[in-house]
Amino acid sequence: MKNTFGSSVCVTLFGESHGPAVGAVVDGLAPGIQADMEFIRHQLSLRRPYGRISTPRVEVDDFEILSGVFNGKTTGTPLCIVIRNTDTKSRDYEATRALARPGHADFTAYEKYHGFEDPRGGGHFSGRITAALTAAGAVALTALRIKGIAIGTHIASCGGIKDRTFSELETDIRRLNEMPFAVLDEDAGEKMKEVIAAAAEDGDSVGGVLETAVTGVPAGIGEPWFDTVEGLLAHGLFSVPGIKGVQFGAGFDLADSRGSIFNDPFCMEGDCIKTRGNNNGGVNGGISNGMPIVFRCAVKPTPSIFREQGTVDFMERKDAQIRLSGRHDPAIIHRARVVVDSVTALVLCDLLAQRFGTDWLGGMQ
Amino acid sequence: MKNTFGSSVCVTLFGESHGPAVGAVVDGLAPGIQADMEFIRHQLSLRRPYGRISTPRVEVDDFEILSGVFNGKTTGTPLCIVIRNTDTKSRDYEATRALARPGHADFTAYEKYHGFEDPRGGGHFSGRITAALTAAGAVALTALRIKGIAIGTHIASCGGIKDRTFSELETDIRRLNEMPFAVLDEDAGEKMKEVIAAAAEDGDSVGGVLETAVTGVPAGIGEPWFDTVEGLLAHGLFSVPGIKGVQFGAGFDLADSRGSIFNDPFCMEGDCIKTRGNNNGGVNGGISNGMPIVFRCAVKPTPSIFREQGTVDFMERKDAQIRLSGRHDPAIIHRARVVVDSVTALVLCDLLAQRFGTDWLGGMQ
Amino acid sequence: MKNTFGSSVCVTLFGESHGPAVGAVVDGLAPGIQADMEFIRHQLSLRRPYGRISTPRVEVDDFEILSGVFNGKTTGTPLCIVIRNTDTKSRDYEATRALARPGHADFTAYEKYHGFEDPRGGGHFSGRITAALTAAGAVALTALRIKGIAIGTHIASCGGIKDRTFSELETDIRRLNEMPFAVLDEDAGEKMKEVIAAAAEDGDSVGGVLETAVTGVPAGIGEPWFDTVEGLLAHGLFSVPGIKGVQFGAGFDLADSRGSIFNDPFCMEGDCIKTRGNNNGGVNGGISNGMPIVFRCAVKPTPSIFREQGTVDFMERKDAQIRLSGRHDPAIIHRARVVVDSVTALVLCDLLAQRFGTDWLGGMQ
Amino acid sequence: MKNTFGSSVCVTLFGESHGPAVGAVVDGLAPGIQADMEFIRHQLSLRRPYGRISTPRVEVDDFEILSGVFNGKTTGTPLCIVIRNTDTKSRDYEATRALARPGHADFTAYEKYHGFEDPRGGGHFSGRITAALTAAGAVALTALRIKGIAIGTHIASCGGIKDRTFSELETDIRRLNEMPFAVLDEDAGEKMKEVIAAAAEDGDSVGGVLETAVTGVPAGIGEPWFDTVEGLLAHGLFSVPGIKGVQFGAGFDLADSRGSIFNDPFCMEGDCIKTRGNNNGGVNGGISNGMPIVFRCAVKPTPSIFREQGTVDFMERKDAQIRLSGRHDPAIIHRARVVVDSVTALVLCDLLAQRFGTDWLGGMQ
Repeated sequence: MKNTFGSSVCVTLFGESHGPAVGAVVDGLAPGIQADMEFIRHQLSLRRPYGRISTPRVEVDDFEILSGVFNGKTTGTPLCIVIRNTDTKSRDYEATRALARPGHADFTAYEKYHGFEDPRGGGHFSGRITAALTAAGAVALTALRIKGIAIGTHIASCGGIKDRTFSELETDIRRLNEMPFAVLDEDAGEKMKEVIAAAAEDGDSVGGVLETAVTGVPAGIGEPWFDTVEGLLAHGLFSVPGIKGVQFGAGFDLADSRGSIFNDPFCMEGDCIKTRGNNNGGVNGGISNGMPIVFRCAVKPTPSIFREQGTVDFMERKDAQIRLSGRHDPAIIHRARVVVDSVTALVLCDLLAQRFGTDWLGGMQ
Repeated sequence: MKNTFGSSVCVTLFGESHGPAVGAVVDGLAPGIQADMEFIRHQLSLRRPYGRISTPRVEVDDFEILSGVFNGKTTGTPLCIVIRNTDTKSRDYEATRALARPGHADFTAYEKYHGFEDPRGGGHFSGRITAALTAAGAVALTALRIKGIAIGTHIASCGGIKDRTFSELETDIRRLNEMPFAVLDEDAGEKMKEVIAAAAEDGDSVGGVLETAVTGVPAGIGEPWFDTVEGLLAHGLFSVPGIKGVQFGAGFDLADSRGSIFNDPFCMEGDCIKTRGNNNGGVNGGISNGMPIVFRCAVKPTPSIFREQGTVDFMERKDAQIRLSGRHDPAIIHRARVVVDSVTALVLCDLLAQRFGTDWLGGMQ
Repeated sequence: MKNTFGSSVCVTLFGESHGPAVGAVVDGLAPGIQADMEFIRHQLSLRRPYGRISTPRVEVDDFEILSGVFNGKTTGTPLCIVIRNTDTKSRDYEATRALARPGHADFTAYEKYHGFEDPRGGGHFSGRITAALTAAGAVALTALRIKGIAIGTHIASCGGIKDRTFSELETDIRRLNEMPFAVLDEDAGEKMKEVIAAAAEDGDSVGGVLETAVTGVPAGIGEPWFDTVEGLLAHGLFSVPGIKGVQFGAGFDLADSRGSIFNDPFCMEGDCIKTRGNNNGGVNGGISNGMPIVFRCAVKPTPSIFREQGTVDFMERKDAQIRLSGRHDPAIIHRARVVVDSVTALVLCDLLAQRFGTDWLGGMQ
Repeated sequence: MKNTFGSSVCVTLFGESHGPAVGAVVDGLAPGIQADMEFIRHQLSLRRPYGRISTPRVEVDDFEILSGVFNGKTTGTPLCIVIRNTDTKSRDYEATRALARPGHADFTAYEKYHGFEDPRGGGHFSGRITAALTAAGAVALTALRIKGIAIGTHIASCGGIKDRTFSELETDIRRLNEMPFAVLDEDAGEKMKEVIAAAAEDGDSVGGVLETAVTGVPAGIGEPWFDTVEGLLAHGLFSVPGIKGVQFGAGFDLADSRGSIFNDPFCMEGDCIKTRGNNNGGVNGGISNGMPIVFRCAVKPTPSIFREQGTVDFMERKDAQIRLSGRHDPAIIHRARVVVDSVTALVLCDLLAQRFGTDWLGGMQ
């Protein structure tokens, strides 16, 4: 299905960085979900470049909803959101057409599309497309919120600086969702920004780890084989540019550990079945167990750096050197955060709609 | 799609641990691929319990191909492989029907299937189903081999003991594919077995990390959004019981690092475009770059341990204690290895068939 | 997806006419549906050759359920049904390997599978595979019956003889579902059998038209574009061997008519919204309107006839003559009937599960 | 998948009749296909109201390509085409909000979307959405043309007037593709227009039958079960508003006939394998046999008529009368023609890309 993802609720992405627009179609959304323009705008603002640690390319991100909303609510028919590209400076990119930027998709795009791809600003591979994904995710997040499901992500580490971990989940999530640079410990956040700024001074970039928690997902969602909660989330998350790893619960940290430590014993908490500890990240056998779904994503350092790098001219098939100019982010982890939330929301809407039917998220059932 | 996975080449799994059989249907395979019975048997043997560090339940794993093979070759129509369950001792499991084994899917299955699920031996959630997946994967591996694509996985670490990393990929892979306990450093392997045996003595279990390398995948396979090489592989891999994390290339290790280190500069190697280093694990922008595809999977410690654990009775909704009896593995990482190879092979066949058409893998194009 | 069909409830078919078995996997069925062995057997009996107007090849059609049923009910996990092939006489077919039987798939299979296809008895193209489809459909029919949805098909015409049309739908359907040769007017039925027998005497075959009615489908099922009720049903129905046309409601009969005649005006019937007339066949804008879903399928005359026919040797690429021997049906329309019901049931289960969630059909919601 | 259709090449539709725009995303198209703006404009002109026999609502149908085209050719990434709605007069529709127009989707939409649907001008159910489908189809048609595949449709009958059938296929198709009112016999065409005009005078409408022929499709395309050529085409075609029946080759006409007549004997024509006659419509066993693919679609009379009709108020659940005003077509069959061609082209691109890989249509393989 390629650029379409999902089964009951699906999202289709389109657009190129320097083409007329980027956009998303979300299909299968329940009718009656509020299309909260203010919230979409807020989410887009969280993805936008932030202060001195981001690219100076700033898009207004004025979105337009072309379909699927009537009287301020979703109709249940496909919702198309379009965001025009305005601040495009294509001459920045032309000189390096056949020089593969290391860590980027220039070469792989050329191998796949035979030179017909739009190379300007990364074309269809650009992080710019995540603006559309963020807008689509905002509607999904609104739907989930009504059902008591909340999603929050913080920068668990960046350039070697660690944030504290989640403590009061509900409060933490609420706070994170307002922050342009999402950390639980603001001192750690300041240090991260310094590390990013220092890397920028060096013409270099940094990466880090995002940690996400989802509360309120009922037990019993997901499938035992293939369409596991973990598999579907990971499938979507690896589309977020720069993500190279996804782990649930204790993941790699406790992989070498013992069952007596890793297992999360069940216990009653009032009438609810919970687990002591959450090393399994809220998922047993591919299916949600009612505990918070917790996972971490490795975000690689932005591949765009301002240092001379070895590369090849992939048309002439010879070695070459490249030194990028133009506008780039020394880190994208703080901007990737809201994209992770968006993908997560879309996947969960899909899983919930499959389980409970297409009306459920709209509150009709 | 649930228990069916894939787009051009798809696999459907069925079966319960103590039902009549487990099986797989593989659809979309090119016609003309050798159905190598000896190789399928070999692969199944790699998944079978191994020595004193595995469950004493030993299935003969006699498989039968019900369809899709004629004169020893795939016909191009759906190939169904069935493996009968023979050594089932269901009374071992009955006493604990409503007691959720920690780390297992008993509770989540109950929430999803309302008690209609087959609870014997883990039912449809049992690792037993991976026997069918392994048989299906064997055919996919055969197809890839003809095209010069090889897949190998080793136990990168287990119970805290580390294996050496890949050095001579082709040789390493060939060697691994013959080993029932797949390590590159046999001394490390012996230590791992001791750690597993020690855990077994304690009534406990251990996990670890698998590292996989795939050679020979041409550049240009995969999609920029959603159906990325990473996303599709991860989607499939999270179905392998116990896998809680997947990372490509340097993944989490270098997430906090800098772009100047993480980026893999391109270079010519004769007529071929390669990268120096492979921190991106053979994938740029979701698409294969022609370098080996390398990833690691976190395998949690087997949840079945022989210690008293806290739990709940999920029918009566009250706290309880559980102590497992029966036959269980103190580690499954060495058995999960061949399942990882199988999933990887099926996903790659799918991606290649999508790109080059349905005949390509059969050598008809 | 090829041999897998459906979104929330999907069926995968496998098998060859003279291979070990044919079978089906049904995935996504709600847990808790009765697996009514007697009813499956009954449905298979309706598909079996009938009297002197059918092939003398008679399979016992002993089916085995390999998975997905526990304690007599569906578990919610994939249900695999296998039917062994027993009465195969492959030597009947070998002489004509490269001679394309007119109206059959020998030539197209060769073009698609390059000669690797199993040609014995039509291989994977054989009507034999519909035995598996019938068994799968029987479970779907059981699920629908609980929800008050009934499906019935009669031979509306055969060899030029017309049956009467539906009058008392509920009664008609109940009666049809017990009849091996499903007609509403038994006199017409006797004449049809005579026409079939006469064609058989001539070494020839006849076709006809099946008419199907479905009662009890709630309004609001289906999608406006692509996954319309008509589109999904037709997609499935064209898999029934011999079907060359599908029309809903008045279809082609009133195509040339006028809106004032074709339109079905709405009216209240007690508290229910109905239409006067049902020229639209129960579907408006792709979505069920609560009226019976009514459609007709054109079934071509069985292509296997015992007359000399012109053909080609597709391997040697030269003209040839062919005269079939072996065992064949002079008509399949009476046997196709139960396959049409089965496909219809599977498609409706899928549409209902998409709309109301995966538990709905099992009565859990 | 709902509003997305296809596997390797897929189309997603969005939009409402009186919303900001309608549009389509086509994904999976080969890179390097010419985006022929003139041809897209031509195709849209064929769908536009024609002379006095159509609605006076005339949209300019200025389309904009938002993505997927660079330097005049497809990039291989999703192509989004948007057509703004300009000539919308919503007050025409408001008075009849809760009165179900007979033959329309007002009531079924209400049952599905609970009143959140956009009712203006038919909303997402409007024929207006087919403008987007036509634009998408134009790109698919261009791709097919390069590969020697041509599609043409004529009005085989309308209001009881019959056109002649195809004779010289290639010539006929070429001529039809230039005609706003597509008939092979222009005298018959004039009579049809008179019948339509007469119906319009009566405040009534007429329907008819479209016949389509596709030349140049190689043998061996399609699947034996479910994804048959017939099944996939029918699945798509039933989305064209008003289509209530689809039949291939002789379809219903010869259903009652005999095998000796219906069977199409194979014969050599030079080096090519052909059939004498084409009662099977170019498809055997679900797979193309190299002959022209020929099918007919029943198009019901436009449901919008200007006569008083019985109906219900579906909100108040009571009987009512309705008399439409506004702008409507007394026939849509001549406008549906190009939509049928478009769906056909998209389905064939999908089937060909699945078979031969994603590059094939772009001429890269």
